[in-house]
Amino acid sequence: MNFCSNCGASVIIRIPAGDDKPRHVCDNCGTVHYKNPLMVIGAIPEWEDKVLLCRRAIEPRHGYWTLPAGFMELGETTGAAAIRETLEEANARIELGGLYTMLSVPHANQVHIFYRARLLDLDFGPGTESLEVALFREDEIPWDDLAFRTITSTLRHFFADRKSGRFATHAGDILVQSRKGPLPEGR
Amino acid sequence: MNFCSNCGASVIIRIPAGDDKPRHVCDNCGTVHYKNPLMVIGAIPEWEDKVLLCRRAIEPRHGYWTLPAGFMELGETTGAAAIRETLEEANARIELGGLYTMLSVPHANQVHIFYRARLLDLDFGPGTESLEVALFREDEIPWDDLAFRTITSTLRHFFADRKSGRFATHAGDILVQSRKGPLPEGR
Repeated sequence: MNFCSNCGASVIIRIPAGDDKPRHVCDNCGTVHYKNPLMVIGAIPEWEDKVLLCRRAIEPRHGYWTLPAGFMELGETTGAAAIRETLEEANARIELGGLYTMLSVPHANQVHIFYRARLLDLDFGPGTESLEVALFREDEIPWDDLAFRTITSTLRHFFADRKSGRFATHAGDILVQSRKGPLPEGR
Repeated sequence: MNFCSNCGASVIIRIPAGDDKPRHVCDNCGTVHYKNPLMVIGAIPEWEDKVLLCRRAIEPRHGYWTLPAGFMELGETTGAAAIRETLEEANARIELGGLYTMLSVPHANQVHIFYRARLLDLDFGPGTESLEVALFREDEIPWDDLAFRTITSTLRHFFADRKSGRFATHAGDILVQSRKGPLPEGR
């Protein structure tokens, strides 16, 4: 950030009065420009013993597999965002189940939130941000080609809970920067 | 938003190529400026049969009571934000319990997230954003003077779950604009 989006003057980085963190501040019009983490919202669309995954047609992680998910938009609820992203990325209609995972990714300034969901029909296919969309049984999941560790963590929780017969909401953090590092346990 | 924070040129509102929503776009340097919902993170600090509330020293809702909560900062986890906000607003130290409520507030472009928490000692007091801080039993909660409906909803869930002896994570939406309207049920 170089310029004030309100008045166009140059901004500087300093700690505003009454604050304790450096912010982008405009000394011309007095605006403090805050930056905050973003929410990425998605779903685990289930059909019988399979889940729906999308292969990414965009960076980052072009060509890798993900659950349908994306940035929450203004004016939305988290549930509406999960339904919209599933429609956009997989042309798939779902009925939402409960909140399933909420995973902080502090090095990316993001929180990833996934809902359980019931796929309503098999009339799905890739949206503009997907190369392909397919259903996977647990033993077919491309674990080494998943796009993000929040996807890996969410799917591991899902199959473990399904095995135990008891689904709970899982909150946790993805703290290690390397994608090759171990997966921290959910809290 | 009037000016591009990257190059200082004027921005216009239009739908960028490959998108389906109007955004603030800079045609000089090509930057698309997205706006997304913010997370407000807080805690329900418990001490015996009481919970800790703060009376707000700032707008909006100056003078009304709230659970300690505030905007999540860059580089934080949701849990770290809950601990920090409780320290800043109530000078109180907590040990986090589980994720408790996640409530979308689409008309405010916010998602409010609360954790259960154990207050570690009674050495608390108002931070700069609070007028006073106090512990309340259920029958002492100032229900008519709570600052936000997400606070009311979170406390109602809390006391109902405590009565039933079974705490679960509650996700839901606060959809009615009027503060006087009925409280939508959690999903």
